[in-house]
Amino acid sequence: MTESFIKMAHGSGGQSTSELIAGIFAKYFHNEYLDAMGDAAVVPGSGRIAMTTDSFVVTPYFYPGGDIGRLCICGTVNDLLMSGAVPKYLTFGCILEEGMPTDALEKIVQSAAQTAAEAGIQIVAGDTKVIENSGHPEGGIIINTAGVGFVPEGRSVGADQIREGDAVIISGTLGEHHAAILGKRMGLENTIQSDNAPLGEMTSALFAAGVRVRAMRDVTRGGLGTVMHEFASESGKTIILEEKALPVRRDVRDFCGILGLDPLYMGNEGKMAVVVDPADTEKALEAIRGSRYGQDAAVIGEVAAAENMPEGRLLLRTPVGGLRVLGPLYGEGLPRIC
Amino acid sequence: MTESFIKMAHGSGGQSTSELIAGIFAKYFHNEYLDAMGDAAVVPGSGRIAMTTDSFVVTPYFYPGGDIGRLCICGTVNDLLMSGAVPKYLTFGCILEEGMPTDALEKIVQSAAQTAAEAGIQIVAGDTKVIENSGHPEGGIIINTAGVGFVPEGRSVGADQIREGDAVIISGTLGEHHAAILGKRMGLENTIQSDNAPLGEMTSALFAAGVRVRAMRDVTRGGLGTVMHEFASESGKTIILEEKALPVRRDVRDFCGILGLDPLYMGNEGKMAVVVDPADTEKALEAIRGSRYGQDAAVIGEVAAAENMPEGRLLLRTPVGGLRVLGPLYGEGLPRIC
Repeated sequence: MTESFIKMAHGSGGQSTSELIAGIFAKYFHNEYLDAMGDAAVVPGSGRIAMTTDSFVVTPYFYPGGDIGRLCICGTVNDLLMSGAVPKYLTFGCILEEGMPTDALEKIVQSAAQTAAEAGIQIVAGDTKVIENSGHPEGGIIINTAGVGFVPEGRSVGADQIREGDAVIISGTLGEHHAAILGKRMGLENTIQSDNAPLGEMTSALFAAGVRVRAMRDVTRGGLGTVMHEFASESGKTIILEEKALPVRRDVRDFCGILGLDPLYMGNEGKMAVVVDPADTEKALEAIRGSRYGQDAAVIGEVAAAENMPEGRLLLRTPVGGLRVLGPLYGEGLPRIC
Repeated sequence: MTESFIKMAHGSGGQSTSELIAGIFAKYFHNEYLDAMGDAAVVPGSGRIAMTTDSFVVTPYFYPGGDIGRLCICGTVNDLLMSGAVPKYLTFGCILEEGMPTDALEKIVQSAAQTAAEAGIQIVAGDTKVIENSGHPEGGIIINTAGVGFVPEGRSVGADQIREGDAVIISGTLGEHHAAILGKRMGLENTIQSDNAPLGEMTSALFAAGVRVRAMRDVTRGGLGTVMHEFASESGKTIILEEKALPVRRDVRDFCGILGLDPLYMGNEGKMAVVVDPADTEKALEAIRGSRYGQDAAVIGEVAAAENMPEGRLLLRTPVGGLRVLGPLYGEGLPRIC
């Protein structure tokens, strides 16, 4: 790019837009489908496809352990994975504020390209718009990614598959992404790195090991508490989490303690909760722990028999043995992290 | 919705987000796939799929003849159609500014739902984020839509199919959407209505009539001049447009005359340029004119023999018979219209 900052003309749809696309987006994202530059990309399909979308509005967009480019790929890839799909194609919609430095944009696009390569997904279509500057110190950027994955025949995962007696596993420690963003926003010199990561290696390992996976969900906005509350209310089953089993790193625990935050409602961007047949618990743990980003996986709870418990609720067994009812995240709670 | 304005909490991923989704989005968009509310929607697939994405940042978001809700569906549906696909599924990502009136949001969502029904496409996944208010008088909204369509076996349309002698057809008059937005932004009391519309009826009619369609592109940002320049440079052929054949409504022509604008570079949101086998010209005109939004279709040019003309260029034959070389839209030119 010969220009150092984004201008309104870069969003006009004319020659300046073409220069921006050629100078940054095509440079890092190019592949046979994207290079065709048509109104839509035509790609090989499959009998069952999964679709998802996510917009990313995190600020700052460079943070310890990652950036909005890595985040937007991980978020959409993980959403596809959680439906049991194999992620295949992404669209990449970019909304830039006038005045954004083009070298910051290039770093973000490069990071997105690297993360897409890691996750084995192809970016096949894109769009760029430019809006007025809102006074963002770094120049603002919003990214929307939408994804398509292929769902293998016969694979069916979802909250409606959850049964009494099932085991609940978390793939790793809670709250890092949230703490990394919040710390950076507060100007703290903390060393907590975001966990933003694509989870395809561990989901593949689960299915390859023959684990009977009932449901999976990645732990993002709203944290584990909100995800498990969704599982409980959508399945109509009672889920009991063991407070002392929840894995939280010491530095994140301290960070939460100082700020009065609950790690149960802190967002991650590289962790998933998975409900499995209880007979497959050890096999599942082994598959996740043997995968990248899964070494701290732990069994954290179970789906309770309905005769003893109110249906469709989320309960937390405290270290002293009491049972506390948990709701979803209420109110704003925390700054936007994705 | 019990709340009158969007709060940051509506983007938290917790209970307020659920209330917003249930109170507005699910109310208008509900269908079997979206209602599942998983991380991704699993839908029936096809052997060849088309994918596209577009972000919509138009202001004002209510304008004569339409709104951002109708626009975001038309834009993505039309991009799918232009690749020869039958539009099937959409994702809908919404970025709201804090303070946006919820009844304005509801009107937009309702309009999007009606347009999706008209276009025969299902909204299968969504996402909502809330960002700080930038001082937008109506409260701001940005929408990203990504679409998936099915491409029938054997159908192949694109600039690489364009051949010497082909005819160039426009489906209707130029510049209405652009003039509607620009007029509203300028506070003019003009009566020009946006042409925002889904073009599926006319593309279906073309294929049903057996027209040999080489390439189609909807006329949006950058206008017909930019679209035809893309066709010329991507095909390596020379395209000659007849200036006196270009259909422009009297009120749009007057509007352009007063402001010194060129209708060739004014954006539409419900028109397409189509290149067809010259033997099928009449059949194509009939098919488009018989379809909704196609009554003003006209033949506007041809693909010239390369021996007489420089390759890969766009030329305009003026009313007095001269030939002028046209480029794509250069610079910003015009306010953002989509």
